[in-house]
Amino acid sequence: MKEKIREQSIQLFATKGFKETSIQDIVDALNVTKGTFYYYFTSKEQLLMDIHLQYIDDLLEKQENIIKNESMNCKDKLYNIVYMLIHDIEKEGLSAKVFFREMRNLNEDHLTLIVPKRDQFRINIQKLLDEGIEQNEIRSDLPTDIVTLSILGMTNWSYFWFDPQGRASDKDVSEVFIKVLLEGLAV
Amino acid sequence: MKEKIREQSIQLFATKGFKETSIQDIVDALNVTKGTFYYYFTSKEQLLMDIHLQYIDDLLEKQENIIKNESMNCKDKLYNIVYMLIHDIEKEGLSAKVFFREMRNLNEDHLTLIVPKRDQFRINIQKLLDEGIEQNEIRSDLPTDIVTLSILGMTNWSYFWFDPQGRASDKDVSEVFIKVLLEGLAV
Repeated sequence: MKEKIREQSIQLFATKGFKETSIQDIVDALNVTKGTFYYYFTSKEQLLMDIHLQYIDDLLEKQENIIKNESMNCKDKLYNIVYMLIHDIEKEGLSAKVFFREMRNLNEDHLTLIVPKRDQFRINIQKLLDEGIEQNEIRSDLPTDIVTLSILGMTNWSYFWFDPQGRASDKDVSEVFIKVLLEGLAV
Repeated sequence: MKEKIREQSIQLFATKGFKETSIQDIVDALNVTKGTFYYYFTSKEQLLMDIHLQYIDDLLEKQENIIKNESMNCKDKLYNIVYMLIHDIEKEGLSAKVFFREMRNLNEDHLTLIVPKRDQFRINIQKLLDEGIEQNEIRSDLPTDIVTLSILGMTNWSYFWFDPQGRASDKDVSEVFIKVLLEGLAV
């Protein structure tokens, strides 16, 4: 039931917005009582926090599995992280929408738990680029912090336009992104 | 006064949110009456539309001036568009925030006015890339629609992290972005 409440709420928060969705809306959609809701969550805010935490923990775990895989070089790891993010939209698109859009509805205590994890995801990419420079796979003349943000811009923005049912697949999009990133557009 | 109402509202919408800001909040902050507000705008929604329209019209005009400048090649035009977007954050950061975040609060009629302009901005970049391919400046093996979205991802995402008072200037960031885009990261 906890998972059902979470899924239904992601649906409602993504379509109506967090503030516009009441606990009553959530329990009505599931045909359960408010008592059931409060058995699992102390408040709507705590539920939002739970959704955020699950989303970012899942991404971090997948990212760390890619990074520690010793059979890949840095470029391959970068490709796999980009692909993981784009692929994830199909499964987790609504969670992502809620994550990016409703972050500001978390209170200070909850932000203190989420922000360092979000930062860790970014820092892991930057470290990967730094390692790529050491391995002579990645050019060394660009600041890796800004490059990291350019990569995250490409991938995060795709949550707002990528349609898994559209003409280009998650693999197509990831391959274009990684070619732009690694090889560049110039002839 | 119209411009003052617009500026004050951008400030309030960006910090408190559109739904959370009342017309009373706006007129209180300016020390004027509601009558003054209704002299210039028919509703809060129409004011939001006005802010959106001014924001996108201004960007489109600047973009079109760059594109029609015959003294630049395609790569230079691309650099100038990226720089224009990053530079704009210093001046128009709050408008951008309101634009991206509050778009969903526009009604259907208003969206019909805004969405084609937003699309035009994207299509202009795609056309520039297509022209770059014709001029043999840009590689021809990548779909320019997806490449365009990767460029817009980089630049649009920077509204959420770029700090004009920070360590890297608008010029620094634009130069890193354009080097990643044109030359790529690989050694």
